[in-house]
Amino acid sequence: MSVPANFNGSKPIINPADAAMLLIDHQSGLFQTIGDMPFSRVRAHAVALARMATLCGLPVITTASVPQGPNGPLIPEIHQNAPHATYVARRGEINAWDNPEFVAAVKATGRRQLIIAGTITSVCMAFPSIAAVADGYQVFAVVDASGTYSKMAEEITLARVVQAGVVPMDTAAVASELQQTWHRDDAPQWAEVYTQIFPNYQLLIESHGKAQDVQKNGEALDSLRA
Amino acid sequence: MSVPANFNGSKPIINPADAAMLLIDHQSGLFQTIGDMPFSRVRAHAVALARMATLCGLPVITTASVPQGPNGPLIPEIHQNAPHATYVARRGEINAWDNPEFVAAVKATGRRQLIIAGTITSVCMAFPSIAAVADGYQVFAVVDASGTYSKMAEEITLARVVQAGVVPMDTAAVASELQQTWHRDDAPQWAEVYTQIFPNYQLLIESHGKAQDVQKNGEALDSLRA
Amino acid sequence: MSVPANFNGSKPIINPADAAMLLIDHQSGLFQTIGDMPFSRVRAHAVALARMATLCGLPVITTASVPQGPNGPLIPEIHQNAPHATYVARRGEINAWDNPEFVAAVKATGRRQLIIAGTITSVCMAFPSIAAVADGYQVFAVVDASGTYSKMAEEITLARVVQAGVVPMDTAAVASELQQTWHRDDAPQWAEVYTQIFPNYQLLIESHGKAQDVQKNGEALDSLRA
Amino acid sequence: MSVPANFNGSKPIINPADAAMLLIDHQSGLFQTIGDMPFSRVRAHAVALARMATLCGLPVITTASVPQGPNGPLIPEIHQNAPHATYVARRGEINAWDNPEFVAAVKATGRRQLIIAGTITSVCMAFPSIAAVADGYQVFAVVDASGTYSKMAEEITLARVVQAGVVPMDTAAVASELQQTWHRDDAPQWAEVYTQIFPNYQLLIESHGKAQDVQKNGEALDSLRA
Amino acid sequence: MSVPANFNGSKPIINPADAAMLLIDHQSGLFQTIGDMPFSRVRAHAVALARMATLCGLPVITTASVPQGPNGPLIPEIHQNAPHATYVARRGEINAWDNPEFVAAVKATGRRQLIIAGTITSVCMAFPSIAAVADGYQVFAVVDASGTYSKMAEEITLARVVQAGVVPMDTAAVASELQQTWHRDDAPQWAEVYTQIFPNYQLLIESHGKAQDVQKNGEALDSLRA
Amino acid sequence: MSVPANFNGSKPIINPADAAMLLIDHQSGLFQTIGDMPFSRVRAHAVALARMATLCGLPVITTASVPQGPNGPLIPEIHQNAPHATYVARRGEINAWDNPEFVAAVKATGRRQLIIAGTITSVCMAFPSIAAVADGYQVFAVVDASGTYSKMAEEITLARVVQAGVVPMDTAAVASELQQTWHRDDAPQWAEVYTQIFPNYQLLIESHGKAQDVQKNGEALDSLRA
Amino acid sequence: MSVPANFNGSKPIINPADAAMLLIDHQSGLFQTIGDMPFSRVRAHAVALARMATLCGLPVITTASVPQGPNGPLIPEIHQNAPHATYVARRGEINAWDNPEFVAAVKATGRRQLIIAGTITSVCMAFPSIAAVADGYQVFAVVDASGTYSKMAEEITLARVVQAGVVPMDTAAVASELQQTWHRDDAPQWAEVYTQIFPNYQLLIESHGKAQDVQKNGEALDSLRA
Amino acid sequence: MSVPANFNGSKPIINPADAAMLLIDHQSGLFQTIGDMPFSRVRAHAVALARMATLCGLPVITTASVPQGPNGPLIPEIHQNAPHATYVARRGEINAWDNPEFVAAVKATGRRQLIIAGTITSVCMAFPSIAAVADGYQVFAVVDASGTYSKMAEEITLARVVQAGVVPMDTAAVASELQQTWHRDDAPQWAEVYTQIFPNYQLLIESHGKAQDVQKNGEALDSLRA
Repeated sequence: MSVPANFNGSKPIINPADAAMLLIDHQSGLFQTIGDMPFSRVRAHAVALARMATLCGLPVITTASVPQGPNGPLIPEIHQNAPHATYVARRGEINAWDNPEFVAAVKATGRRQLIIAGTITSVCMAFPSIAAVADGYQVFAVVDASGTYSKMAEEITLARVVQAGVVPMDTAAVASELQQTWHRDDAPQWAEVYTQIFPNYQLLIESHGKAQDVQKNGEALDSLRA
Repeated sequence: MSVPANFNGSKPIINPADAAMLLIDHQSGLFQTIGDMPFSRVRAHAVALARMATLCGLPVITTASVPQGPNGPLIPEIHQNAPHATYVARRGEINAWDNPEFVAAVKATGRRQLIIAGTITSVCMAFPSIAAVADGYQVFAVVDASGTYSKMAEEITLARVVQAGVVPMDTAAVASELQQTWHRDDAPQWAEVYTQIFPNYQLLIESHGKAQDVQKNGEALDSLRA
Repeated sequence: MSVPANFNGSKPIINPADAAMLLIDHQSGLFQTIGDMPFSRVRAHAVALARMATLCGLPVITTASVPQGPNGPLIPEIHQNAPHATYVARRGEINAWDNPEFVAAVKATGRRQLIIAGTITSVCMAFPSIAAVADGYQVFAVVDASGTYSKMAEEITLARVVQAGVVPMDTAAVASELQQTWHRDDAPQWAEVYTQIFPNYQLLIESHGKAQDVQKNGEALDSLRA
Repeated sequence: MSVPANFNGSKPIINPADAAMLLIDHQSGLFQTIGDMPFSRVRAHAVALARMATLCGLPVITTASVPQGPNGPLIPEIHQNAPHATYVARRGEINAWDNPEFVAAVKATGRRQLIIAGTITSVCMAFPSIAAVADGYQVFAVVDASGTYSKMAEEITLARVVQAGVVPMDTAAVASELQQTWHRDDAPQWAEVYTQIFPNYQLLIESHGKAQDVQKNGEALDSLRA
Repeated sequence: MSVPANFNGSKPIINPADAAMLLIDHQSGLFQTIGDMPFSRVRAHAVALARMATLCGLPVITTASVPQGPNGPLIPEIHQNAPHATYVARRGEINAWDNPEFVAAVKATGRRQLIIAGTITSVCMAFPSIAAVADGYQVFAVVDASGTYSKMAEEITLARVVQAGVVPMDTAAVASELQQTWHRDDAPQWAEVYTQIFPNYQLLIESHGKAQDVQKNGEALDSLRA
Repeated sequence: MSVPANFNGSKPIINPADAAMLLIDHQSGLFQTIGDMPFSRVRAHAVALARMATLCGLPVITTASVPQGPNGPLIPEIHQNAPHATYVARRGEINAWDNPEFVAAVKATGRRQLIIAGTITSVCMAFPSIAAVADGYQVFAVVDASGTYSKMAEEITLARVVQAGVVPMDTAAVASELQQTWHRDDAPQWAEVYTQIFPNYQLLIESHGKAQDVQKNGEALDSLRA
Repeated sequence: MSVPANFNGSKPIINPADAAMLLIDHQSGLFQTIGDMPFSRVRAHAVALARMATLCGLPVITTASVPQGPNGPLIPEIHQNAPHATYVARRGEINAWDNPEFVAAVKATGRRQLIIAGTITSVCMAFPSIAAVADGYQVFAVVDASGTYSKMAEEITLARVVQAGVVPMDTAAVASELQQTWHRDDAPQWAEVYTQIFPNYQLLIESHGKAQDVQKNGEALDSLRA
Repeated sequence: MSVPANFNGSKPIINPADAAMLLIDHQSGLFQTIGDMPFSRVRAHAVALARMATLCGLPVITTASVPQGPNGPLIPEIHQNAPHATYVARRGEINAWDNPEFVAAVKATGRRQLIIAGTITSVCMAFPSIAAVADGYQVFAVVDASGTYSKMAEEITLARVVQAGVVPMDTAAVASELQQTWHRDDAPQWAEVYTQIFPNYQLLIESHGKAQDVQKNGEALDSLRA
């Protein structure tokens, strides 16, 4: 409906206390079909989502589409980074929301906001997003922690889910909307999260640390050594 | 109107029991003008649509724009993959919806949802889509089974049809929304459909089969042979 | 407002009998700043618009932004292809709609639909489009007969004008919505128009003519000559 | 809400007399993470914004995100080009709008329109934009004077802020909507502003000046010299 | 050595009577790693090579790298299109030329020219090419019937094999150098070969046939029908 | 042989008095297969070559590959711009140099330098170039007045012809090496030639002329008009 | 000299028993300037080189350019993956080969082949490569384990080092030329090396393992579960 | 001749004591035709060359092609950054080397190495480079301080000048080969030179300085402030 659905005029942003995260079909076989961005970025972004859910205590539900077949196994890093996540096996339904156990698991979280990522984007991410909107949830679709076969397919899907009332997000925006402030004890862990989203951030941390060490230790420039 | 038109608040998804498919002007000459994606992808996607319509028993209507001239003949694979399709010859009308026989054929299907693809996108796909919305149909535009002269032209058209209330789809989303589940007897035929949409899927099937055969047959690695 | 403005629910398409065309600031200097597509495509598209306005008897109004300075002269092909066009000189106003003579010239056409293209897109095309919507016109913005400094700038502008209720069009869609049918005496001139929009069409016409001549004349293949 | 928020049907354009400019987190470290366009373009555009605010007497508020850490210092050109700007130090809040001093500074301007740019786009620009809309401001987001880690992230953010009622702008459109006319004494300074947005404009000015000098001075072509 | 090696001043072109073809490691798993072009183009080009070898009676030798493991099975189309090809199983050697049975099979052909393609390019194609040059063969490397992980890797490999005296070829050049003339009975089969190399050629054939049929049958333009 | 062949140490540049131009297979059908650059650029460059040959009195020989079939007719502009050109019909030979009449026509010019362009690059341009080198000619291959199916194919061909001793040229370099100086009576015609190679040059000429006229006529800036 | 220098006609390939590896200036600051490929690929490739040197017992020498300044610290993974590497501090010399301790360290290895990578490519990799060739070494330049500021700069450098007699390599080719065969006990470690060069290889390993496990364990497809 | 010409086996590197710099036709009009890279990068690189020549005391000769016409004036920054440069006016010769005063000026420097950049690359840079090689100079062509109309044209030219014995360089390599070491008093000026070649270097300097200041001044993180 081209407005953020189910917000009823309230600010369309994530409330960490009322959100759950759904990570759908991030599987080794399906990853080979990704063409809208390097699949390794999708992998890193999905892992970042799992990690930030853990940092915030967000419920996480995972599932996979027939992992015994060509779609391949769920990538292991997701549960490694979100050990509290619940895995729901489906029975062949393409739309995870068509699987009653999956919907039940979502309901069991008691949360009214869903952060959803899935491969492939137009199916595994979009179908549950549209269905969840219809069931009254506030839905945030993490488009770049999902992957699909072409940039054009991604753009079409972005248009479709926005039309359906889903709020589109990139992975960095999800992180920052959950983190809220650097004035917190786990700030260093959040900095690590960002290194998975924009890898240049790791270089910044390394260079910054070295520059301060040089100053602290009075280390001379190599070019000024005797 | 920037919301999915004619859904009246119901979920904007395809209902296989109430949908018909319109494949418009997929012609050899027009395909030469495609610049927003490789035309061979458009061709494969159009063929995939025809094939999935057959798997689901969806009515299909085809038409061509002056195929005796530079636009060239309809590509033969569409009717080969949808032998039940009805071809409607026009009398020069650019918008297929301006041709009374075409509209009559659509009405004759009794369906209220239309899945539309056409070359070129901004004309052969967009004009009938906008007209059908005005006539009360729920319309799904398959943007990447259509083709046009530039990526920018495709993006402009996507914006225009969404503004008009059309639901934008990629070819994979149409397939999955029609298939619904892998728990069906014709699952292998659907797997074949996907190999036409993301060709890597064929590699996955081949590699998966070989890996299982090696295990089943106790075949040794070549590198471990005596 | 994200719905086609001022249509009041009627179909958002061009009515050749009620439309005028505004071609704004297509100048040799400004063309050097175009970065979202090759400027020569913008030039060809603007010329195609002028030509189709002539074929349909559409009123055309042109203007230029300080052509005595670095922006350079209006390209001559526009008036060559639309000899009936009216040129309105401004007094430095960036938004043509801020110039009273320009608005008066538009009003004098008696038309309620405006087809607008201009360089640069986000300014010369977008500002008058938004202003005309506010004054009650139905506005069609021809995004790829306009040009701007980056693809991103074009995308931002597309989003802005759609949000404002403007209908986005590509040049081919304008042509086809004006032409309506190939069943007309000036069909060959329309075919020429398309060769300026997708140059491959010229190749199609050439190849088609040769293939028919070969058949008609019983010309042998060179490879089968004695 | 997919219409320009808080305009209540009035034309969604900048009113120089009622607008303030917020330049958020344009920092040397964060600039290294920019991947949607060359960071040097973002830098030039941000500087152009500062300069045009000065030309128009627009209030400017700047801020930075923990500039003592890897994010690095605010780039110096912003305050150099807008010496009247107010800098607000935050206490780690990621969303500048979460910092009470920042919001107070905005309120103190008495303006109801906000022109916002920030790095990274989906966070530093988008969060305050969405929050300001919720607080009743008319918000213009300058997408290409902001920067983020990928083109896709930029596109997602554009969709999100438009959905939220923000008006998307490119830097050139902001300049022209502020400048309004070339019929003003500071026209040459505005020409300089454009050279920072589309660098070809500098070439145009140089070539135009030389061509007029040659004519004025009766300078012969080198190729015609004896 | 940067001149075509082992030609001794003779023209560096393929002699169909003295050439053999080596198709190395075109495997479903390795194809997933291809990043310098769409893998489906590599697949089509390798198939085209097999087909043209059959048309010309060229000896073909195939091999695979540990197809029991992640590299996956040889794609079946190669032997389908070159039923006379000899498959040589290796024992883990990465460079096929390090496998004595492979080299023996090459020698057994009695040919002094080798047309080589392989995946991945810098290894499976380049290593045997360099080794064969050292053993006195004239080597033609078909770079775009090979595939590798990045465009840069392909460019580096092109430079390396040229430096080593290998003649670089694209697939179309191999076809034409083998076919030599359209004045031959199997000309239609060669036309089919080209449709796999530049798919637009299929469109040309279809359009050409239709245009001639229309002329032959006196078929009227749809737009001129009563 | 990776040095310019047959120059014997003399400077590898074009001598207008000793050069002939061969324009091979620039046909409407083959142009549809061009993928390394927009075919319309190839068309413009081929036309530019024809035009500059006329300006310099260079002999021109043209030919086509089975123009009665899908390859289509020779584009008409070549002979229009080089009315003195000789057309040689082949008998199906793919390499024009395999046709005795073609070689005879080349010999009849008495020139020892050949400027060659052809579509497709790796075949129609490369084969005659390599053959002509072997027959002792100094050969200049105009790579961007030729066209082929992919950028990679063009790069492979560039490497192959350089390895074979051909001098690679772009169209602009050919023009300038023929023109030599602006101090000549036909300088304006040469300026026109460049507008076909870099279309921005046309804008420069238009802007330069206008700027001088404004100065000459004392025309006021529109923005300074009363 | 455009032939592989110092090979004297022997095959230009790596001999693991006679090669040393030089990893030059892979520093966090310099990595920010990389524009010819994602810096994270350069980082992964450099790490892969270090790892393969360890697997083969190749001597490794590292160095950094003024790491106390903006160039930043050496990335830590190199010494982590090649614990036996020797670090040589320079005194500001840009060309590592200008530093006597560096050259002495190279000589001390007793190897005559050098595998060199460095950031930035045209300086830190190219200068020592050219100098080492002049001193009689056989040099292999790993172009994609180096990084520079633009793709064009990389291409220019590739041309320059090939002209100077350096053998250009991609990272995968170095790995395979060192590994030689899968018939070795450390084959799994080599497989891991490749996952850093073409990340899809990791997916292949995961999918292959899962497919074999499913077969081994008789695991049913989820879609066939009761 | 595909080896660095006129080096006679000596190392093909720049000797600052024996080199002169030729900056040819960097003009505002010609810059508009540049399509192989953003012209503003060419401008920055040309300025960097001028600056480094001044730092090293290298002779500089400039010239322009008919600056009174559409080619436009020489950009002023070159002489601003190399005040000691000599400007030579030509008489219409396209190849600067055809102008006797230009060659005389080169000879007058007494240098045997020439560092050459020019716009457009294939003409203004390539022609004098090839001519200078023929006259016995060692020539270094700075390809990315030159500009031309397409990436393909640049690649063709690179191949041509390498074939002719010219050493190809990027701008950074020239800087570093002239600078040689950071152990020199003007090191900060060289750092500034690099900010014009890879603008990220400016960010590195800014971030590095700030990080050291924070450490030196004991400045607290904003996020840790009370």
